[in-house]
Amino acid sequence: MAQNSFGDIFRITTFGESHGKALGVIIDGCPAGLEITEKDINDELFLRQPGKTEFTTPRKEKDEAKILSGIFEGKTTGAPISIVVYNHDADSSKYEAIKDVYRPGHANFTYLEKYGIFDYRGGGRSSARETACRVAAGAVAKKFLAKENIHLCAFIKEIGGIEADVKLDADTLAFRKKVYEDPIFCPDKDSSAKMMDLIKLSKSEGDSLGGVVELISSDLPVGLGDPVYGKLEAKLAYGMMTLPATKGVEFGSGFSGSRMRGSEHNDHFILDDKKNVRTKTNYAGGTLGGISNGMPLKLRVAFKPTSSITKAIPTLTVDKKETTFNLPEGSRHDPCVTIRAVPIVESMASIVLADCLLLNRCTRID
Amino acid sequence: MAQNSFGDIFRITTFGESHGKALGVIIDGCPAGLEITEKDINDELFLRQPGKTEFTTPRKEKDEAKILSGIFEGKTTGAPISIVVYNHDADSSKYEAIKDVYRPGHANFTYLEKYGIFDYRGGGRSSARETACRVAAGAVAKKFLAKENIHLCAFIKEIGGIEADVKLDADTLAFRKKVYEDPIFCPDKDSSAKMMDLIKLSKSEGDSLGGVVELISSDLPVGLGDPVYGKLEAKLAYGMMTLPATKGVEFGSGFSGSRMRGSEHNDHFILDDKKNVRTKTNYAGGTLGGISNGMPLKLRVAFKPTSSITKAIPTLTVDKKETTFNLPEGSRHDPCVTIRAVPIVESMASIVLADCLLLNRCTRID
Amino acid sequence: MAQNSFGDIFRITTFGESHGKALGVIIDGCPAGLEITEKDINDELFLRQPGKTEFTTPRKEKDEAKILSGIFEGKTTGAPISIVVYNHDADSSKYEAIKDVYRPGHANFTYLEKYGIFDYRGGGRSSARETACRVAAGAVAKKFLAKENIHLCAFIKEIGGIEADVKLDADTLAFRKKVYEDPIFCPDKDSSAKMMDLIKLSKSEGDSLGGVVELISSDLPVGLGDPVYGKLEAKLAYGMMTLPATKGVEFGSGFSGSRMRGSEHNDHFILDDKKNVRTKTNYAGGTLGGISNGMPLKLRVAFKPTSSITKAIPTLTVDKKETTFNLPEGSRHDPCVTIRAVPIVESMASIVLADCLLLNRCTRID
Amino acid sequence: MAQNSFGDIFRITTFGESHGKALGVIIDGCPAGLEITEKDINDELFLRQPGKTEFTTPRKEKDEAKILSGIFEGKTTGAPISIVVYNHDADSSKYEAIKDVYRPGHANFTYLEKYGIFDYRGGGRSSARETACRVAAGAVAKKFLAKENIHLCAFIKEIGGIEADVKLDADTLAFRKKVYEDPIFCPDKDSSAKMMDLIKLSKSEGDSLGGVVELISSDLPVGLGDPVYGKLEAKLAYGMMTLPATKGVEFGSGFSGSRMRGSEHNDHFILDDKKNVRTKTNYAGGTLGGISNGMPLKLRVAFKPTSSITKAIPTLTVDKKETTFNLPEGSRHDPCVTIRAVPIVESMASIVLADCLLLNRCTRID
Repeated sequence: MAQNSFGDIFRITTFGESHGKALGVIIDGCPAGLEITEKDINDELFLRQPGKTEFTTPRKEKDEAKILSGIFEGKTTGAPISIVVYNHDADSSKYEAIKDVYRPGHANFTYLEKYGIFDYRGGGRSSARETACRVAAGAVAKKFLAKENIHLCAFIKEIGGIEADVKLDADTLAFRKKVYEDPIFCPDKDSSAKMMDLIKLSKSEGDSLGGVVELISSDLPVGLGDPVYGKLEAKLAYGMMTLPATKGVEFGSGFSGSRMRGSEHNDHFILDDKKNVRTKTNYAGGTLGGISNGMPLKLRVAFKPTSSITKAIPTLTVDKKETTFNLPEGSRHDPCVTIRAVPIVESMASIVLADCLLLNRCTRID
Repeated sequence: MAQNSFGDIFRITTFGESHGKALGVIIDGCPAGLEITEKDINDELFLRQPGKTEFTTPRKEKDEAKILSGIFEGKTTGAPISIVVYNHDADSSKYEAIKDVYRPGHANFTYLEKYGIFDYRGGGRSSARETACRVAAGAVAKKFLAKENIHLCAFIKEIGGIEADVKLDADTLAFRKKVYEDPIFCPDKDSSAKMMDLIKLSKSEGDSLGGVVELISSDLPVGLGDPVYGKLEAKLAYGMMTLPATKGVEFGSGFSGSRMRGSEHNDHFILDDKKNVRTKTNYAGGTLGGISNGMPLKLRVAFKPTSSITKAIPTLTVDKKETTFNLPEGSRHDPCVTIRAVPIVESMASIVLADCLLLNRCTRID
Repeated sequence: MAQNSFGDIFRITTFGESHGKALGVIIDGCPAGLEITEKDINDELFLRQPGKTEFTTPRKEKDEAKILSGIFEGKTTGAPISIVVYNHDADSSKYEAIKDVYRPGHANFTYLEKYGIFDYRGGGRSSARETACRVAAGAVAKKFLAKENIHLCAFIKEIGGIEADVKLDADTLAFRKKVYEDPIFCPDKDSSAKMMDLIKLSKSEGDSLGGVVELISSDLPVGLGDPVYGKLEAKLAYGMMTLPATKGVEFGSGFSGSRMRGSEHNDHFILDDKKNVRTKTNYAGGTLGGISNGMPLKLRVAFKPTSSITKAIPTLTVDKKETTFNLPEGSRHDPCVTIRAVPIVESMASIVLADCLLLNRCTRID
Repeated sequence: MAQNSFGDIFRITTFGESHGKALGVIIDGCPAGLEITEKDINDELFLRQPGKTEFTTPRKEKDEAKILSGIFEGKTTGAPISIVVYNHDADSSKYEAIKDVYRPGHANFTYLEKYGIFDYRGGGRSSARETACRVAAGAVAKKFLAKENIHLCAFIKEIGGIEADVKLDADTLAFRKKVYEDPIFCPDKDSSAKMMDLIKLSKSEGDSLGGVVELISSDLPVGLGDPVYGKLEAKLAYGMMTLPATKGVEFGSGFSGSRMRGSEHNDHFILDDKKNVRTKTNYAGGTLGGISNGMPLKLRVAFKPTSSITKAIPTLTVDKKETTFNLPEGSRHDPCVTIRAVPIVESMASIVLADCLLLNRCTRID
């Protein structure tokens, strides 16, 4: 239950609305003894922060995390960790004007129908600001994963139909450094340049773009994930599809794998240099039967184009009259939400893996 | 928790191995007063049954469901419904020969590493036979959905790269009838014929094919799904990715939506003939903000080609020696698991929707 | 899972340590449309507030609740409600001195052994200050229950062996008013006076007392609670035993019922004035088979004497040396925690009932 | 959720009605590698079996457990373990006659009101036959606990007001042997004899008795139980109060502890012969702050007198007419359900402890 919680052992619960007093996350089940500082969390939040380039919304979100509990003398104690990001200076006035219109591509229609009430200021609970909580929790999860030598990296694989030609690196941390140095988190410089041009064009037309985020990892330990309803890829898919604006997720060969033959798709088992069992190819994407197989995790998430645009679109008012809707010129929104989704995808995957690592401790009698 | 359970209110727990004594499912939380017979369940199981055509495994699984509890005088009582399918005549002898080889594309390597023990007979717990339990539970869910005038239909959208050109029908039940009349559950006759030819060819080469299943529904009631970690599409993605052989799932526009502009992707709100709020297009796939928006659900699931083939593939033995693996000629396996996945995808979606319908009763104070 | 959460649909998650920055609670699953103000919550917190009489600790806890999310224009929105109580002026210095001693009756030994780290300041996570979160959540639950005409009242039944002779009142709200007018929440004036004398005596001796809290309710609607692991009394017992210092819980006839005959204990079914089915006696305590039967709920909770006393007791240091432990004269602790447990017991019961009310909506097909 | 499930990691789900086709339990989360046979389970079921003496119901329940899944080559595999007990020869005819009367002390009134339908045959889902499932699951839990040198023993502490004078034994297994040699599971021979006389008398009068079961354990490892809503005693209380006919539960000093002074109740920390930290007394009952403290667990559960008696009692029919109800002479019911509750209490406690042991593996980073 608990529709605002995610995870079994390492379990997060988030709260907060876009223009409310604060957003926050409770992490329950994080093992004791892990070193965590507010800086660890704020460094990750900075990756998601908008307003750093022209490719994200110029809106300034002062996302500064405060730890309210669960840390003592710099370490986790086993008690729930609560992290809060207070909202400042949210300007809700302009939302007054549009509160009586069903916004195409947005959630105000469904929230109003379901709950009979909707906090329309900045999208309320349906706002993507909630993802700051996941990045904060992801920062804690990443610290735990690092203890087990697990590292993840997400990056821009595709924007507006332009696909990056990405050379992966066995050193995930080095690769990640390169990703986050790019203004739009795309490790292929040429494609990145083309994507940025396209974003500028689309923005100038009052329109928006979608894209695809890819996630890879260092070799995972074998054994993460629990059949049959706790499969690693199922939990990852679940987590990814809770992100705003997602339209799909695929693992390894993904949809293109459905066009391959079995003889081609079946990854061959081999021994690597250290005599570990690995597979020659990785069409599986890092799992077999729902359990990690020692290979890197590999998944892609599709994001729709940002719903908030300045072009006018026909729609209805809440009293069912026809009208058109557009954001006023100069409105501050992301021309392509996929970019800021990069650290968020990474965080969700980290939360899933931390949870699976803990569950895996309970697998055998000794 | 409970890695063999799925759902919040309408919650299933499955058990059983491919060659064990029985498989079964417990449905907890099904409302009282629903009429259910063993025939209702066996009719659905028949759709998943192999051996009816040359396009599925010739293996005869005598899948006859027995209801052990939860039904009294033909109706659900609110007590847990247990449904068991006993295994008969499973021939495990041939698995003896291959138990010491890591089977490419299979789960014996990961199970052995995780648990230190593996019931190799017929794939044990990792076998797709477990999905019979989901179809049985899905039969109950469908009866409940029908009471609320909700109908689902899955069908073959693509096999081996051949894409069907499908004309949907506003009458979901009529459309469904047409789907299940086709030998491979594809409503486009021309494509179906081409797919069948390709399956025969692939089979003759000792190889296998993958494919894509699409699911559509009648107009859903508005309000199903719970933000932010109970989003309808997130729960569906979770359910779908727990199915064996899945590599991806997408909703509405899906991955192709990531290449559209916002002005195109934002479905316009309109009034339908009955003055209901609907959208003109359905790129969203039936949800907004994680909540059903009154439009039909629309999702696609990618399946990899069947891992069990008769072509030989290099691999390792459990004591890390190089070898090759192939099933003997005449082995009985599905040349394309995607076909039998059709009723399974439908069942998983039914289970998710039944659960969301019940949760939605708790949304408002009156 | 989630060891800091409680409840299925109406689900609370608490966080915070005694001397940390804040304590708080997230309520997930509260239905939309319920009117809630910070005053509603602070009025309930005031009942738990110490320092109002000499019978509770003179410590001043400034328990002022702030709502951070989930309320819009005075009403719940269906989004998680977060309530925070900030800590002020906590003086942790004196805990420095005692951090290396295993405190008899306290949790520092077990926390240290389990987690390898203990936030000793004010008891950290093991402090009874966490119960402020339950009272805050209970305030919300009570507003929901009131909509359904359900009212609860807890009171002091026994302190230090002195048992109150309590006359219940069919009007639960009137009875409750009387209870909270008494300095120690005991509706029997004579017993209350004797108890207060005993508390003063015990306090003067550097010692402490235990007691029993009783909870009663207005007639409950029939149907709350879900067999077999969701029985109303099981959930209540669970909730009560999560309270600090509890040693037992009993329902209806309780332990004395185990000394009765069946012919005496079996409550007779009768019709009341309004032709409702009720029972003549209420040895059952309001439930049959785990489901509320229309009669008032009736339970009692036993609390041990406060562990924090100024009398010296032999114990060990963390490096296993023998020593004695006592709080310094003038230390500020409750001479009898049972008193302040009264509103806490009431709150826990409210949370359980709110949850069962929502679950009960999912019981039948229509 | 899942009102027919219990536990977090080691999680049971039960199904089945008294006179249905079968009862059963699924155990999800049992670690792989544990040796289990059907005999292990049937040996435990035999302890609960009625008809062995005149002090339990003469009804013959052929409780023979069948393992349907989860065991391979004599060991658990990590897959869900399903255990089924088929019902035979249940004679439901006599229930026909009484199906339209609200049975005092029984659940048919509340089930009918809640669900609108009731499987009245033998009490249906509300029957104590469901506890056979807990004993079966308890047998598995006990095997796991034994691996960790944890042993439990329940026994009759009191029947009909006669209290046993029990001398505990440091060797829990030896003590347990003595308990189960007694016809009514009471280790004090003199009291046992008196209790048996009283049972015979009560039975001859068509009446029934209640009683108290006590549970003790060997020294537990320190660290079991998770604050604040996963406290060991809270989970135990929860489990115990899900048992039929329970009216209360207490730990250590229990209700009598509420009449002690703090200076007396605070158990002194001492070193035992092996230099382990223990407490001199055990008023706490084995936990501090919700976490096991290395001392034996100690709890007592109160059971009401059996509701099924042959004495007539006034009641109502389902159409609200006054009537009287009594079971016909010669009806087969337990004159005192407390006796057969002994192995059931032991089983529930075993399930809770197995769960806490697994959860405790997730507590620290290394």
